[in-house]
Amino acid sequence: MARKDGRAQTDPRAIEAVPGFHRNAEGSVLYRAGNTVVLCTASVDMGVPAWMIGKGSGWLTAEYQMHPRSSPEKREARDGRSKALSGRTQEIQRLIGRALRAAVDLKALGERTITIDCDVLEADGGTRTASVTGGFLALALAAHRLVRRGDARPFLHSPVAAISVGKIKNDLLLDLVYVEDRDADVDMNVVAMEGDQVIEVQGTAEGAPMSRAELDGMVNLALSGIATLTRMQRSLLAGEGVDLNQLKAQQESV
Amino acid sequence: MARKDGRAQTDPRAIEAVPGFHRNAEGSVLYRAGNTVVLCTASVDMGVPAWMIGKGSGWLTAEYQMHPRSSPEKREARDGRSKALSGRTQEIQRLIGRALRAAVDLKALGERTITIDCDVLEADGGTRTASVTGGFLALALAAHRLVRRGDARPFLHSPVAAISVGKIKNDLLLDLVYVEDRDADVDMNVVAMEGDQVIEVQGTAEGAPMSRAELDGMVNLALSGIATLTRMQRSLLAGEGVDLNQLKAQQESV
Amino acid sequence: MARKDGRAQTDPRAIEAVPGFHRNAEGSVLYRAGNTVVLCTASVDMGVPAWMIGKGSGWLTAEYQMHPRSSPEKREARDGRSKALSGRTQEIQRLIGRALRAAVDLKALGERTITIDCDVLEADGGTRTASVTGGFLALALAAHRLVRRGDARPFLHSPVAAISVGKIKNDLLLDLVYVEDRDADVDMNVVAMEGDQVIEVQGTAEGAPMSRAELDGMVNLALSGIATLTRMQRSLLAGEGVDLNQLKAQQESV
Amino acid sequence: MARKDGRAQTDPRAIEAVPGFHRNAEGSVLYRAGNTVVLCTASVDMGVPAWMIGKGSGWLTAEYQMHPRSSPEKREARDGRSKALSGRTQEIQRLIGRALRAAVDLKALGERTITIDCDVLEADGGTRTASVTGGFLALALAAHRLVRRGDARPFLHSPVAAISVGKIKNDLLLDLVYVEDRDADVDMNVVAMEGDQVIEVQGTAEGAPMSRAELDGMVNLALSGIATLTRMQRSLLAGEGVDLNQLKAQQESV
Amino acid sequence: MARKDGRAQTDPRAIEAVPGFHRNAEGSVLYRAGNTVVLCTASVDMGVPAWMIGKGSGWLTAEYQMHPRSSPEKREARDGRSKALSGRTQEIQRLIGRALRAAVDLKALGERTITIDCDVLEADGGTRTASVTGGFLALALAAHRLVRRGDARPFLHSPVAAISVGKIKNDLLLDLVYVEDRDADVDMNVVAMEGDQVIEVQGTAEGAPMSRAELDGMVNLALSGIATLTRMQRSLLAGEGVDLNQLKAQQESV
Amino acid sequence: MARKDGRAQTDPRAIEAVPGFHRNAEGSVLYRAGNTVVLCTASVDMGVPAWMIGKGSGWLTAEYQMHPRSSPEKREARDGRSKALSGRTQEIQRLIGRALRAAVDLKALGERTITIDCDVLEADGGTRTASVTGGFLALALAAHRLVRRGDARPFLHSPVAAISVGKIKNDLLLDLVYVEDRDADVDMNVVAMEGDQVIEVQGTAEGAPMSRAELDGMVNLALSGIATLTRMQRSLLAGEGVDLNQLKAQQESV
Repeated sequence: MARKDGRAQTDPRAIEAVPGFHRNAEGSVLYRAGNTVVLCTASVDMGVPAWMIGKGSGWLTAEYQMHPRSSPEKREARDGRSKALSGRTQEIQRLIGRALRAAVDLKALGERTITIDCDVLEADGGTRTASVTGGFLALALAAHRLVRRGDARPFLHSPVAAISVGKIKNDLLLDLVYVEDRDADVDMNVVAMEGDQVIEVQGTAEGAPMSRAELDGMVNLALSGIATLTRMQRSLLAGEGVDLNQLKAQQESV
Repeated sequence: MARKDGRAQTDPRAIEAVPGFHRNAEGSVLYRAGNTVVLCTASVDMGVPAWMIGKGSGWLTAEYQMHPRSSPEKREARDGRSKALSGRTQEIQRLIGRALRAAVDLKALGERTITIDCDVLEADGGTRTASVTGGFLALALAAHRLVRRGDARPFLHSPVAAISVGKIKNDLLLDLVYVEDRDADVDMNVVAMEGDQVIEVQGTAEGAPMSRAELDGMVNLALSGIATLTRMQRSLLAGEGVDLNQLKAQQESV
Repeated sequence: MARKDGRAQTDPRAIEAVPGFHRNAEGSVLYRAGNTVVLCTASVDMGVPAWMIGKGSGWLTAEYQMHPRSSPEKREARDGRSKALSGRTQEIQRLIGRALRAAVDLKALGERTITIDCDVLEADGGTRTASVTGGFLALALAAHRLVRRGDARPFLHSPVAAISVGKIKNDLLLDLVYVEDRDADVDMNVVAMEGDQVIEVQGTAEGAPMSRAELDGMVNLALSGIATLTRMQRSLLAGEGVDLNQLKAQQESV
Repeated sequence: MARKDGRAQTDPRAIEAVPGFHRNAEGSVLYRAGNTVVLCTASVDMGVPAWMIGKGSGWLTAEYQMHPRSSPEKREARDGRSKALSGRTQEIQRLIGRALRAAVDLKALGERTITIDCDVLEADGGTRTASVTGGFLALALAAHRLVRRGDARPFLHSPVAAISVGKIKNDLLLDLVYVEDRDADVDMNVVAMEGDQVIEVQGTAEGAPMSRAELDGMVNLALSGIATLTRMQRSLLAGEGVDLNQLKAQQESV
Repeated sequence: MARKDGRAQTDPRAIEAVPGFHRNAEGSVLYRAGNTVVLCTASVDMGVPAWMIGKGSGWLTAEYQMHPRSSPEKREARDGRSKALSGRTQEIQRLIGRALRAAVDLKALGERTITIDCDVLEADGGTRTASVTGGFLALALAAHRLVRRGDARPFLHSPVAAISVGKIKNDLLLDLVYVEDRDADVDMNVVAMEGDQVIEVQGTAEGAPMSRAELDGMVNLALSGIATLTRMQRSLLAGEGVDLNQLKAQQESV
Repeated sequence: MARKDGRAQTDPRAIEAVPGFHRNAEGSVLYRAGNTVVLCTASVDMGVPAWMIGKGSGWLTAEYQMHPRSSPEKREARDGRSKALSGRTQEIQRLIGRALRAAVDLKALGERTITIDCDVLEADGGTRTASVTGGFLALALAAHRLVRRGDARPFLHSPVAAISVGKIKNDLLLDLVYVEDRDADVDMNVVAMEGDQVIEVQGTAEGAPMSRAELDGMVNLALSGIATLTRMQRSLLAGEGVDLNQLKAQQESV
């Protein structure tokens, strides 16, 4: 199956990232995967939610928001403005939060809350996976700043990235754009760390169900894409002077 | 790992179901999986949501609600009463709807809406999977009634069931009760049809991530449990005079 | 006037009750009055609402909820889900709370809150009166458990029951089913204890007003029905080993 | 029992009313019963709510609102402002609407909606009964204007008034002020037309229950008070040139 | 340009005010400017909002509400009832609060909160300016009562009043009524103290923009009107025995 | 008074603008005034709000939103998320809408709606004025695209810009940054077109009131700043190939 943007079925989209795009947040990146653009910021506040106070542990949470004109077609209302958030937005921001908490040793973080804001400025499919992958960059930049200033000891585990896979007719495609996602029979999102360490798998058959073998093939394809993305993360952070090995939480605090 | 209720690690909980428990709904079942009790009703209404009108196709949607005293410990507020539904409830009812739509040929259903209400009366883990498995029973009973009366032609594909698997330390356990779920490092819910036809996989590592091999083992264990549950569904429905083969949607309408 | 279900004008509907139907609540009953079915649970929590703290007194409150398919005709939206509760639901749950508080010596209860949840599973008129009468059964079962375990001293006054009366054309009918209620010119609900001790009277002329004599007749008919219901309550509780005399609050704490 | 304001136990409060106080509404009155002050307006609009369209019948509805400083003690938040209306406010405005609909021949009114707004400016008990009694005055003034201009044919039945009765210790008191209401064991509100035609009875025992005989005594006392109030209504309206007999709906349209 | 009510272009409307109209509030006035009628009450409570506690300073806030029948044309829904307040209402009550805070030495007031409720009973344009001007009268009456009783030391600065100016075609008009406001190209509201001390200017060109010279002319006209209104305030308060000079905050506490 | 950023009292902040930053919107700009950064997009949709249909006229509206980390200090909750918008946000977006509608000949626009989204990414005072000035750039870029493609005839009047002025002690300062705004006694925002054509003036004395002369001085200073900004707008648009003269609405359609 030929893809509109000329990619092979097993290729992720090209990534561009502008670290420090947002100057107030402790960490930030303007993250582009093809035509999907997400502004990811990591804000660090002292203190934790009420139900965590006194446990000596930190917290990480995420918010996800579509810009009203993120679609090329037409303007949409801001989700959740003056009314309840849609189930879709809630699902996505819960997913981002779980995915990035897996990258953090909350004990080593101490009683701080890190909030990852993912504002989707332009959308062409894959906004939740871009939010996770870009969100990790913002998180690592904030961690670097905290540790460099001596405000915290190292608290990261490993890079975390996410990508989608879809089954369209009999083809498996990596990193779907909007029109591919719309036409897919099965849509799967995978979040993982380096070394095929899986954090989250969410696969849904909207059309015909998937066989056991197809499920395996989709997971494999996703993990190959995630390996590419975590290499990109290490390289981009290195260019900013951030060495993830020095931000790694020590064994004893796990 | 010994389980409190004496089950083997690969055993699902014992199921009891009271078909027709709710006398007003077109189909209903009081469904018990161990100490989890869900009242599932299927209500059939003429017409479809506004965005589907005129497509000659039907719709199926689901609502999920915890009884305020579903926990043995203490009473909780009814979620979403006089305020927005929690993200958890929204995620669950979207999952139930997707899972059971996969069992239905919406074209063959015609412009009707089936609503599956899953009221969790007592909760001991696995409420979303019990809602799917019990929800299919209510759906099949309603389909039987519609078809028998000549109000609709057959519109079901296959039994659909759901079950959870968890990884606790180094063990994989099928069909987690509450305390097992709370302690699991990885929690996975799988929805499938007969014949290992997977509809949905949702696996989340709350603690350490899962390896590729563990992911495979969890899916396999879940599918073995689902095979047991779909046999139970066929048998229970047969006892009510419902033959799923006669409710099967014809090829041409797929 | 002949009644569809063959009852005399002065007969209440047949009652069935399944005590302990809900296994988590401190007290519960699945209560059926004809085709009206209400699941009543009594949950006991330590502590009282903020405005009562420190008065050495307990509290009792009630919630009422219609199952979306409680009507035989069609599914309705859950009242108050993701929006404000309707006035009708609020009126009814305030009534249930007032009625059952009258059965309780709040001083003797101590700083506990009892919540009576009345979930109407199937509705054929008289859901609020069934909630009061069934709610008392759940309350008494919870009281029995608290007292037997030595967690509280006796705190009940007397059985409390409720019933409706209607005027249709020139007839007075006891315990209206839905179609009778819909056609009544006057609709009255009475809550009382044994011995014609009236707790609440609510009579409304929807059509022509009622004369003084008709009002008297309606109250009398309701009180005769309540006498039948309180005898049923004593008898059903005795079958569960509950002796209301032993749960009676002592004089000094009134 | 001596009353603070010197009234006999069977005396209603002195009434003052300023007809036409609000110059924009079709009918209005500033109504004072002792220290309770309610601004009642009747607004007439063409058309009826969606569920009544095409039935050739009109509608009457009511809104009730406490001014934030209606209490002499302190300012309270406006009920329902930027949030859901309290159950109390909803109960009261539903009562006012039912009570005044009983005064109107909706067929004769034609497809119009009359809205009675009852704004309690100052409160000393009895605000719901003052709203009904004053609301009828505003309604009659609006009816007079409609009929005189030939915009509608006569559509009223009879004056409607409301009053409270309370049992305090062993005394029955008519038309309770705030402190009497607060201390009453039983509180009853009665709405009736001339000639002891009862529209609504709502009696609640907050403390000890009421006997059958006490209930009778309370109804009798309330009806004597209502007779006084309907005479006052006729007289006050006559002073404004309004003859209720000329506004009376004709037999055939009942 | 001839005005419907015969006023010169530079004349404000005639004012009538009934001090003490609301008997429960510490200060109140029923304020009429032509056909605009506002009930203004000032309520004094001990304590301040959470964010001001411990600063030794008081607070003043305002609420604005239109009566549903304030328009002569037809009844409107109460703004903000059971839903969010409109932006218009919020803007107006923030303006009233700012305007009247300028009249108060908050330090001298001490840790009290004064709430000015402005209920517009009848509306013919200029409701926000009438609320400010009438609101000051209620405030001064409340201040007089506090100071006379020795509950507070003097805390007022100067009378504050507000008025509108509009540009219609080439004319500048003072104190617009509704139809003038609707047709104006530019609409300006000015709040000031005696001596042309400006507190707030809000001018908006709805049609063609205003030149620098027109802006000056509008401000001048508004200030002449405010001078008339503050004289009226002093005179009316004097008639109630209130001498503003004795309520004036002392220099040192500014 | 020396300013922290070295500007003279009468200097506006340096402006940077990235036209076309958002690739989906019909017009967009990333607008920086000092440390205040606003993403402005103009989206054009066919059709108008319900109350304008059939008038042959278009509409322009605006939304304003602070990014949760727009403050350098700490993260704030997104205003209006899952609850009502604050009065501040509503005031600001109403102001932006009014200001930019003044730049548009709505008749010439035809039955289209233009929505200006102003997302404040970083905030250092002056976010509402930056939204107006940047919003005009996005609007002009969208107009250019519509006209160039022949989708609409020219519909703009003139550049529109906004700026703030403050009085701190005895100094008047142009274009306040956050700390200056916080300390100002008087804060004024002015919106105007080229040639000192004033669209909106909003001045508020938070501390001491302003004299007539000070008011004049503030308006003059603001207008000088606006002249600078409209020159910048013309120049920046010219660099994008946009000639405002060619987008000017023709006389006859005014």
